[in-house]
Amino acid sequence: MLDVIREMEIKSRVYLDSNATTGLSAELQSQLPAFLREFGNPSSIHWASRGPKTVLRETRQELAKQLGCHPLELVFTSGGSESNNTVIRMAFETFAHTERCEFITSQVEHPSVIKAFQNLETLGAVVHYVPVNLDGQLDLEFFNSQLSERTALVSIMLANNETGTIFPVQALAEKAHAVGALFHSDCVQALGKIPLNLQDLGVDYASFSAHKFYALKGSGLLYAKRGAPYVSMIHGGGQERHRRGGTENTLGIFALGLQARRLGETAEHAEQMKDLRDYFEMKLARDISGVKVTAKNGPRLPNTSSLVIPGVDGETLLMSLDLKGYAVSTGAACSSGNPEPSPVLLAMGLSREEAQSSLRVSLGWETTVEEIDAFLLTLKKTVEHLRALQTHGASHDLSP
Amino acid sequence: MLDVIREMEIKSRVYLDSNATTGLSAELQSQLPAFLREFGNPSSIHWASRGPKTVLRETRQELAKQLGCHPLELVFTSGGSESNNTVIRMAFETFAHTERCEFITSQVEHPSVIKAFQNLETLGAVVHYVPVNLDGQLDLEFFNSQLSERTALVSIMLANNETGTIFPVQALAEKAHAVGALFHSDCVQALGKIPLNLQDLGVDYASFSAHKFYALKGSGLLYAKRGAPYVSMIHGGGQERHRRGGTENTLGIFALGLQARRLGETAEHAEQMKDLRDYFEMKLARDISGVKVTAKNGPRLPNTSSLVIPGVDGETLLMSLDLKGYAVSTGAACSSGNPEPSPVLLAMGLSREEAQSSLRVSLGWETTVEEIDAFLLTLKKTVEHLRALQTHGASHDLSP
Repeated sequence: MLDVIREMEIKSRVYLDSNATTGLSAELQSQLPAFLREFGNPSSIHWASRGPKTVLRETRQELAKQLGCHPLELVFTSGGSESNNTVIRMAFETFAHTERCEFITSQVEHPSVIKAFQNLETLGAVVHYVPVNLDGQLDLEFFNSQLSERTALVSIMLANNETGTIFPVQALAEKAHAVGALFHSDCVQALGKIPLNLQDLGVDYASFSAHKFYALKGSGLLYAKRGAPYVSMIHGGGQERHRRGGTENTLGIFALGLQARRLGETAEHAEQMKDLRDYFEMKLARDISGVKVTAKNGPRLPNTSSLVIPGVDGETLLMSLDLKGYAVSTGAACSSGNPEPSPVLLAMGLSREEAQSSLRVSLGWETTVEEIDAFLLTLKKTVEHLRALQTHGASHDLSP
Repeated sequence: MLDVIREMEIKSRVYLDSNATTGLSAELQSQLPAFLREFGNPSSIHWASRGPKTVLRETRQELAKQLGCHPLELVFTSGGSESNNTVIRMAFETFAHTERCEFITSQVEHPSVIKAFQNLETLGAVVHYVPVNLDGQLDLEFFNSQLSERTALVSIMLANNETGTIFPVQALAEKAHAVGALFHSDCVQALGKIPLNLQDLGVDYASFSAHKFYALKGSGLLYAKRGAPYVSMIHGGGQERHRRGGTENTLGIFALGLQARRLGETAEHAEQMKDLRDYFEMKLARDISGVKVTAKNGPRLPNTSSLVIPGVDGETLLMSLDLKGYAVSTGAACSSGNPEPSPVLLAMGLSREEAQSSLRVSLGWETTVEEIDAFLLTLKKTVEHLRALQTHGASHDLSP
């Protein structure tokens, strides 16, 4: 068995970074090429538009059925970041000159939410950022103290991309509604990881991304509850009932529609991923000394392990693992190769040192126990090696 | 010969709506499927990200070389509408509270420009809309009279989507710069139809769309000259050097990159399309009485014929032609099935009746003379038929 694993270690590539993006399912890989011939503009009124127009309608219907909303409450966008920015900007434009001119969000939102609010601050908005504790949980006292009839919009993610922490969105939305505020949730990380029903969730707006759910990059979704205020961010043609201008990404929407039919499998895959993730964390605690799982004491996505591995630099570990074929991530979102420690982990109260020793392992629907076993073995050896180097290096540093 | 044409008429589909969207080239259809396996997030730092990251870099370099700019002056967006909205909003946010708080655009811009400016007006902006004459030419006297040191941004398209009219962007940009204003041009319709060099054009910002140039929907480009002000519209991760948040549409960018290598063929295809278009218009004048070509007396895209066919309703004609396999468009952008006459044609001074009798024929790189011949024949017969029906219908109306 170990021989097999060692061989696998060398030969194959193991992807354990599903919170960053996911690969296309085999079904999509086989079905998308034929759709490349469906090139019509859905807004045209001739034969070339009919296929794409049908795809828009059917995808919207399928998503609505699966997510628990009305088809016309869904707007196709270019992704989660656009959806998030649309809602935040819209709330500002709608309420800027009224007495409802304050916003509430958390300190651990995705950059597309945090940065959109920071931009509103430069335009004069008042934004309250709810802190979190070491378990990743929101400071509800702070939330309650800032929520008022001055609150225009609350934006709290359903699940955190780095730690997997699930936030009590339903309860928070109820509180927001009680004072007449609107509620938005970035649900990008939840799709395909936990069963999700928008009606139950009770939010006014929700954001989704196709590429976090085994479909294509460049495609996403914005749920806007019927009757909730709406102002376009991208003005243009009459697409999406005047809610989002621009010719639709028909291939991306086709892919999302195919994948949407599999949303019903979420509970089953969540169970599988949770079993594997728990097995991984259990073995890890046994194999590598001092490892801590961040935000373990609270509701978490079933696929996410956010680790602190003392005595190891996260970036170095990531690169060593990459050389051996394992794709993982540090806590930090290194989108520009900038190795700053993760703001999410720092907001939780981890030290810079801890944040810099972090590693995020995020499983997908297709992750196997063999992959986890191979990864555990490699991770153990790599950590031992790096720790030995560091001790060695440290003793060098101490020498005259 | 006529037999062959008649047969073709029945059997094949002819696409003459290239200003609405274009089909993928055979090369793209064959090369894209393999890229579906390249699923990594370009912002990750492991093996899965390397292919996509290379694609971003190489596409940017190729586009820069072909368009005459620096690679870092190009920002990947979700399309022309996003690019247009980004520039217009950015100028407003940058200059709103300064003495440069006025904007100039034309009455015949794409809806994503017109509607973005209309939205700014609701936020307090002053926007001057330059009128056009019956030849589609801008009223330069109006332009000069409104341009001043209060002008923040001028946005004038390079070529009109409905009539094909080419505007003197280079000269207008020089005038704008002389008073310290910024200049943006929606170049969506020009790409692949006329040779285009951004340095020669002298604009500060330019918008492009991939799907109008034989690549994929959901992908576009924003040129922002080095040193020109820039504020993101979609805030998020550090993608695109912090100019556009959101995981990149890697498949769309890959397709655009492949197609960009063919931009050098533009002059040659322009010549071909112009010959075909002129042949079409010459035959048309001979075959169908009363046909007028809109904006014929000025510089035009080589692929576009905007027609007024008296005595025929454009919508009805379009649908009759569709039944016979021909994809064309009315002057109106019927994105919601709303048969309002085209605002562009009305702005030019056409009557509602003329605008409602309009038909847009737009050729592509692959259009053949056989397709044009078959189309001419069908168009002639269809117009004759509809005119006869109308005369018949009219006499009915007059009967007691």
